[in-house]
Amino acid sequence: MNIGILGAGQLARMLALAGFPLGHAFAFLDPQPDPCAAPLGRHLATPYTDANALKELGSWADVVTYEFENIPAQALHILAEATVHPQPAALFHSQDRLQEKRLFTALGIPTTIFQAVDNADDLPRAAAAVGLPAVLKTRRLGYDGKGQAVVRRPEDLQPAWEAIGCQSAILENLVPFTREIAITAVRHSNGGTVFYPISENIHVHGILRLSLARPQDPIQTQAEAAAQALLTHLQYVGTLTIEFFQHHHSLIANEFAPRVHNSAHWTIEGAETSQFENHIRAITGAPLGVAPPRGYAAMVNCIGELPEPEKLLAIPGAHIHIYGKAPRPGRKLGHVTLRADTPAALHRSLVQALEIVAQTDPLMHHVLHQIQK
Amino acid sequence: MNIGILGAGQLARMLALAGFPLGHAFAFLDPQPDPCAAPLGRHLATPYTDANALKELGSWADVVTYEFENIPAQALHILAEATVHPQPAALFHSQDRLQEKRLFTALGIPTTIFQAVDNADDLPRAAAAVGLPAVLKTRRLGYDGKGQAVVRRPEDLQPAWEAIGCQSAILENLVPFTREIAITAVRHSNGGTVFYPISENIHVHGILRLSLARPQDPIQTQAEAAAQALLTHLQYVGTLTIEFFQHHHSLIANEFAPRVHNSAHWTIEGAETSQFENHIRAITGAPLGVAPPRGYAAMVNCIGELPEPEKLLAIPGAHIHIYGKAPRPGRKLGHVTLRADTPAALHRSLVQALEIVAQTDPLMHHVLHQIQK
Repeated sequence: MNIGILGAGQLARMLALAGFPLGHAFAFLDPQPDPCAAPLGRHLATPYTDANALKELGSWADVVTYEFENIPAQALHILAEATVHPQPAALFHSQDRLQEKRLFTALGIPTTIFQAVDNADDLPRAAAAVGLPAVLKTRRLGYDGKGQAVVRRPEDLQPAWEAIGCQSAILENLVPFTREIAITAVRHSNGGTVFYPISENIHVHGILRLSLARPQDPIQTQAEAAAQALLTHLQYVGTLTIEFFQHHHSLIANEFAPRVHNSAHWTIEGAETSQFENHIRAITGAPLGVAPPRGYAAMVNCIGELPEPEKLLAIPGAHIHIYGKAPRPGRKLGHVTLRADTPAALHRSLVQALEIVAQTDPLMHHVLHQIQK
Repeated sequence: MNIGILGAGQLARMLALAGFPLGHAFAFLDPQPDPCAAPLGRHLATPYTDANALKELGSWADVVTYEFENIPAQALHILAEATVHPQPAALFHSQDRLQEKRLFTALGIPTTIFQAVDNADDLPRAAAAVGLPAVLKTRRLGYDGKGQAVVRRPEDLQPAWEAIGCQSAILENLVPFTREIAITAVRHSNGGTVFYPISENIHVHGILRLSLARPQDPIQTQAEAAAQALLTHLQYVGTLTIEFFQHHHSLIANEFAPRVHNSAHWTIEGAETSQFENHIRAITGAPLGVAPPRGYAAMVNCIGELPEPEKLLAIPGAHIHIYGKAPRPGRKLGHVTLRADTPAALHRSLVQALEIVAQTDPLMHHVLHQIQK
């Protein structure tokens, strides 16, 4: 089939690499002049709102998908004549933190206490309802910790409002947590669903640094129930991830992404069928692949600058993924997956990998410290 | 790095798919107008002897490799200023069945009794030395059973000579065998070598139909010793396969291929690091990846016509690889890998896959029959 993708970054690149063996061809729409998926298909270098390019993509493609959620509504309107998976309705909720949290609540998925903040006058009332400490987040276009400000005392409210640019926001109670986890699931149009083992995620400065696959974790059942409710409600087709805060034995849903997700990159080598392959299978109507893990796996992001690949490749069971992007502070340039047959072997190779990655990304020392606790 | 590949068929395509995550870019030289690796890099559509194109490829690429062994000596001469791995010396032996068998003999690798046949007058003497039954094979350009004729009685000699086109040949004793196996190995320029578990191969009408990974097979040691001798002698860099006839506990080397090979396609999902990734690692000087199997794996070729992918993908642990080539009788269009955690589960999914593939390739019934014996 011909598959069109909105966006041509690393997620589109890994989708295409997974889709070639299945016999598919790719085209990407991305305003960047030389995005990293471009070598794998045709690249339409126009804004996401370019009606002609969108129509061209839609008529060439048998199915259109996307690698990020902040697609302008206008673009989806123009694409409406093509087949688009996942359904644009999923974007409506995930683009807007307020809609997202309202949906979680409506579906009985536990989430944090939240209040809409439309202008500065709303702040005191919202803070009283939510309690402090809290986080003020822009309703739209936040990612990797951007568009957020922590509010510890009432006098932080106004500076937080200014820090996020005085725009429509949501104030959320700051959730205490013992760890952050994510579940990735894939749904076929026939209703069949596969769930990957949950990932335990470690963020530093708002950016994901480490995901550890946690097969047979007792919290899996709760996470699956939340994902199943969301997938069914949205009549979703494709791969989706929900990120949670875990506090003792409770999960608090933080956000969901209607696309393939960084916290499941380990599935390329660490699961029988990767999240990328299963997304492609789902949106093309092919049977989903099974998702059980292959041993034990972890994924470390390479951020800002690439470590020496040769050092990483010398670790047994290490697999690197270089995205082909120019270095820039805070930018995800690649990742390394570690796979091993025992938890002890995984821990050894993970420590080795983190020490190498920390040479170019010193914040990784925090991760090393956490996993060695 | 920039990697140039002579040939742009499915082997080049799978090399490129393995090389993108490692951060490499590809260019292919192939006279075909629309070869199946072309979507993954730049395509120079010229004859293999086009001096300008070869120079362009050589100057663009940090390293040049090849996906087939019948590269004209002239092309290698022009490429000599570039870095070429594996070394062209390996081609000298593998292009010519007589040189190949002489090399096996010189290295103490058991092979069949053989005699050179340069013209029809040589036939009786060669037949007397080799014994009948025998196989008359062209010295050059034979593959997938082409350029071969079986000689059972002295009166078959002249017709066999005519059948192979009256060209320089080799007469080989027809080896009785209990099975056909192959070993795939990868050598780094530092001398480090990894060996994959042997594959048991089933050919029908001269074309490989099924490869079964055979981890922990007692014949592994003999196969590794032969591969090690060849790799060391050639100071080889990259992936290489030797095909053997096994007769009870003895191995008889039949031929070797100085490239990635169909009988190790199962390593993409069935081994920690695939033959394709390890070839790329070797020729770029990166540390080799470990080769142990992931459970049990088998590979079935899709020949002549593609079966319905949806049927194959419904088998748990099935992974398909469609090459994007036009259907043609006898042409390899794709393959399916089955992976399972136990031999019994593998057998079940293999039978399912063979039944599906037999719908478009009836010769697969022979394979089904053999594995069900």
